[in-house]
Amino acid sequence: MISKIETYSFSVEPFHVDFTGHLFLGVLGNHLLNAAGRHSHNRGWGIDQLNERHYTWVLSRLCIELEEMPAQYEHVEVETWVESVMKLFTERNFLIRNADDGRVYGYARSVWAMIDVDTRHPADLLALKDGDILRYVLTADEKPCPIAKHGRIRVSNQVPIRTISTYYSDVDINGHINSVKYIEHILDLYPRVQYEMHRLRRFEIAYKAESHIGDTLAFCWQPSEETLADGLPAVEQIEVRKNMEETGTPAGDVVVQAKLVWE
Amino acid sequence: MISKIETYSFSVEPFHVDFTGHLFLGVLGNHLLNAAGRHSHNRGWGIDQLNERHYTWVLSRLCIELEEMPAQYEHVEVETWVESVMKLFTERNFLIRNADDGRVYGYARSVWAMIDVDTRHPADLLALKDGDILRYVLTADEKPCPIAKHGRIRVSNQVPIRTISTYYSDVDINGHINSVKYIEHILDLYPRVQYEMHRLRRFEIAYKAESHIGDTLAFCWQPSEETLADGLPAVEQIEVRKNMEETGTPAGDVVVQAKLVWE
Repeated sequence: MISKIETYSFSVEPFHVDFTGHLFLGVLGNHLLNAAGRHSHNRGWGIDQLNERHYTWVLSRLCIELEEMPAQYEHVEVETWVESVMKLFTERNFLIRNADDGRVYGYARSVWAMIDVDTRHPADLLALKDGDILRYVLTADEKPCPIAKHGRIRVSNQVPIRTISTYYSDVDINGHINSVKYIEHILDLYPRVQYEMHRLRRFEIAYKAESHIGDTLAFCWQPSEETLADGLPAVEQIEVRKNMEETGTPAGDVVVQAKLVWE
Repeated sequence: MISKIETYSFSVEPFHVDFTGHLFLGVLGNHLLNAAGRHSHNRGWGIDQLNERHYTWVLSRLCIELEEMPAQYEHVEVETWVESVMKLFTERNFLIRNADDGRVYGYARSVWAMIDVDTRHPADLLALKDGDILRYVLTADEKPCPIAKHGRIRVSNQVPIRTISTYYSDVDINGHINSVKYIEHILDLYPRVQYEMHRLRRFEIAYKAESHIGDTLAFCWQPSEETLADGLPAVEQIEVRKNMEETGTPAGDVVVQAKLVWE
């Protein structure tokens, strides 16, 4: 039987690093999603295989916590496995390490649902393919993922600190703003000095609704009271709302929530 | 002796395709630059090898012309080689083909200079390493690149159709807006319907000056008189100016020029 763990390798390309020489978090997110796709595909659960049955995977949450971000030209290996499967959700974890010396950069957690492409209703993961997915589960005891699970994100502030338009490059093959682009737009809220002075230790994102090309995205921001040595907030929560004041609800629908932990 | 041609392979990843299911041109540009880097490195002319001597490659022009854009999950091979070397510039070409059936998607041309990192002055390519670079030249007779060379781009219009700010994700390890991001921002000028109705056959870009995080970029646009069947311009030229009305020159320095040919 095929291993329960898929290993996915990549190198940190010159155009994929930020001004500090470290991999953009959005690019890392893209690699994690590729690793997930490879794992699913090689076990008969890939989107291409599921589409024939009119199902597709939908990313619900992603959480990345790193001791260190891979640097330019480094070789990286991502291990990914399924930690649990419930009726409507499955938890997939990631270990991110240096391929040459084996040191662990960090871990990631994700939560996925499967939906029917036509009805947009969630599918029962345990009923599909006679519960085949359970064959691939590696419990937390068998393969630990030593970072906290996703927490609840609450942003009461509804005054955006930035509103942007969305364009051609933001949109994926389904016509939706792609998961990675939200990460980029959130990190773009910060000035250069933030990245000179601080490192993003943990990044959590929850995908709540879809947005489309031409939608405006408003970023509402809520800092923690806890601060870093220089007085900047240690933890920040961000809520992204689409078409504020244009939809029926004055505040606009929440499409994405994120939480950033700096050090 | 090592071949004069480097072959670089990649697959078209799900998050690298647009809503039509075809590779984003900016991502293709990134792959071409990676192929160029691999070719240079494997022949002792890589940036990492040159940096020790305080030199670096600077992309001056890039021109991509395609019969077809690779689609999601396709396997692509890029061949790259040096067509000519002059004192201050070298021409590097690319062939882009399907790795499975060999069909040619198209070609690309690029022009590069080498500069001294400290003085920012151009280096004499023929004097470096005793003219070693000439060993790798494949003339147009030996290896044809059947697309037109870069033309002159002229935009007299100085009223921008869009002005954007630049952020963290736009900037590369040198602190400059990265070459690929300009391509994305230019293609983002067009609404979805442009990509539904037309295909970008040829894209030319000339890098004239550097811009930095926080610079504003203004996009000035000039259509051709020639039109497509639906009346839209067949050819468009775009000039990107930084910090318009903020610099000494009222119009702002030109950082990038581009030319788009639609079909």
